[in-house]
Amino acid sequence: MKCKRCRRATAAVDLPSHHAAFCPECFFVFFHRQVGEGIRRFRLLSPGDRVLVCVSGGKDSLVLWDVLMEMGYETEGLYIDLGIGGYSDRSRGKVDAFARTRGKTPIVVDLAKEGTPIPEAARCVRMQECSICGTVKRYFFNRVAAEGGFNVVATGHNLDDESARLLGNLIHWQRDHLARQHPFLPEAGEGLVRKVKPLWRVTEMETAAYGFLKGIDYVTEECPMSEDATSLVYKEALSLIEDKMPGSRIVFYQGFLDAANPLRQEASGEASGNGPPEAGGTTTPCASCGAPTYAEVCAFCRIRERIRKRREQPPGRKSG
Amino acid sequence: MKCKRCRRATAAVDLPSHHAAFCPECFFVFFHRQVGEGIRRFRLLSPGDRVLVCVSGGKDSLVLWDVLMEMGYETEGLYIDLGIGGYSDRSRGKVDAFARTRGKTPIVVDLAKEGTPIPEAARCVRMQECSICGTVKRYFFNRVAAEGGFNVVATGHNLDDESARLLGNLIHWQRDHLARQHPFLPEAGEGLVRKVKPLWRVTEMETAAYGFLKGIDYVTEECPMSEDATSLVYKEALSLIEDKMPGSRIVFYQGFLDAANPLRQEASGEASGNGPPEAGGTTTPCASCGAPTYAEVCAFCRIRERIRKRREQPPGRKSG
Repeated sequence: MKCKRCRRATAAVDLPSHHAAFCPECFFVFFHRQVGEGIRRFRLLSPGDRVLVCVSGGKDSLVLWDVLMEMGYETEGLYIDLGIGGYSDRSRGKVDAFARTRGKTPIVVDLAKEGTPIPEAARCVRMQECSICGTVKRYFFNRVAAEGGFNVVATGHNLDDESARLLGNLIHWQRDHLARQHPFLPEAGEGLVRKVKPLWRVTEMETAAYGFLKGIDYVTEECPMSEDATSLVYKEALSLIEDKMPGSRIVFYQGFLDAANPLRQEASGEASGNGPPEAGGTTTPCASCGAPTYAEVCAFCRIRERIRKRREQPPGRKSG
Repeated sequence: MKCKRCRRATAAVDLPSHHAAFCPECFFVFFHRQVGEGIRRFRLLSPGDRVLVCVSGGKDSLVLWDVLMEMGYETEGLYIDLGIGGYSDRSRGKVDAFARTRGKTPIVVDLAKEGTPIPEAARCVRMQECSICGTVKRYFFNRVAAEGGFNVVATGHNLDDESARLLGNLIHWQRDHLARQHPFLPEAGEGLVRKVKPLWRVTEMETAAYGFLKGIDYVTEECPMSEDATSLVYKEALSLIEDKMPGSRIVFYQGFLDAANPLRQEASGEASGNGPPEAGGTTTPCASCGAPTYAEVCAFCRIRERIRKRREQPPGRKSG
């Protein structure tokens, strides 16, 4: 099959949802346009931004970093070592290797040194692993951004991630989550940086194809702590629909983001709802670390404190 | 495994979403309670109602008729012969046989005699088969109800049907469909009868188990004209989620029906949204048949007219 764009080269990537198939070079053009359109649609980034790209070593975040650099944005990569044994070591290796080829050195946060390695946190705190991990990572996104003078944090969530999250939020009608789900989350006062998801219009398959054709080497294993993640079930259900009706995913997620969607209009607590959610509430400095929080002590410090107390308990008294 | 209710008999039906397993007798009690709760929740039926039960010969509608009779409601069954060859013949046979055991004679409408057999209609009208079929059936629900003095029409849609329809409406964000999707649709002026779905809280599996254990003989084949129906894809996607997370279906659909759901608040064009949708707009009599319609000529008459014109065309001029 010939490429639908240049009509000369052999097509390498088949995209039923776009009624198209592209050769590698034309696929890169297509992919850049999709990401560019995703950025423009909600003004995720501007030319003067200093962008902190959160890289895990997986395909999505490395592809994101690659694309943003190619688009000319000023970026640095942040790698958070979660302390999950061999998985974290292998992930860091991929991030280092990728950064080196682009003449970059990633900023690294080591959770073991910060007193909150995820496996130990999961044993000490009564929260789901993925939920703890999200809290800890958000804390460092904001802290590293503030320390390094970055005004925006970018993560590699793709269309499959976001549509699966949307489906889960709809199945359980989590209206507060629905009101806040968006590729653009504005900065909220001092220390809570703007967060954007520039890959929201591209699918997991498209990101994987881009990474493969660009020769980006990434970790393919899933995080061993998220193996039973419910998000995989929602992804599978949407894949089943997408296979039978190509294009369903983008129709679903883009339709949700429509300013007229009443589920999104609750974002700012009033019925305006034009575009991204507004920042809500007022933060105060955490009594322990000074980071902005809506509570007295921030969630990160509470997790770290639980781990510290547990470490001080004599062996055999591991309950509580 | 023992029955979770009587703790004596052997369980015959396993219900993970209810953390229960029942023997046949206790399952009948459970099933009646679920249907009863579904009726009570939105006041679908009252003791004085004359209920026209639409029966297709499939499990859901025959089970519905059985349960409503056992609950003491005054019911008659309406069978619409769609004119789909052997499938329609076999379906009618099941309806007749069931009705006979209950001392009833179904009311029968034969679409071939009415000039609108579905296969021919599908060839003449540029609409999806299922969509034409729905329009024609709704027309006769209202007409037979008016002629026979029934004040409510009941259909056998179960939780799987309704949750699949909800998912499809959400994927495409069909806000007008979402605003009107409800187990209770009020009567709308002269001739548009109240429509209810008393089985909205029970799953397809539960209905099938009830039918089987009650010895109700029904057609198991799907309608041959709906084989590729997209609703089956949404059902399959939700089954995948339900298998991994039992109870997801009822949480999803019941959460949607919550009066506070902003998607439902659009039903009456204002932000009240307490309970079922309000009847909207004003109907006028169809210029052709006199049935209530929001257009000049009702959708049924337009379909019948297209078929009549096509029949009058000389052979060989079959286009248009």
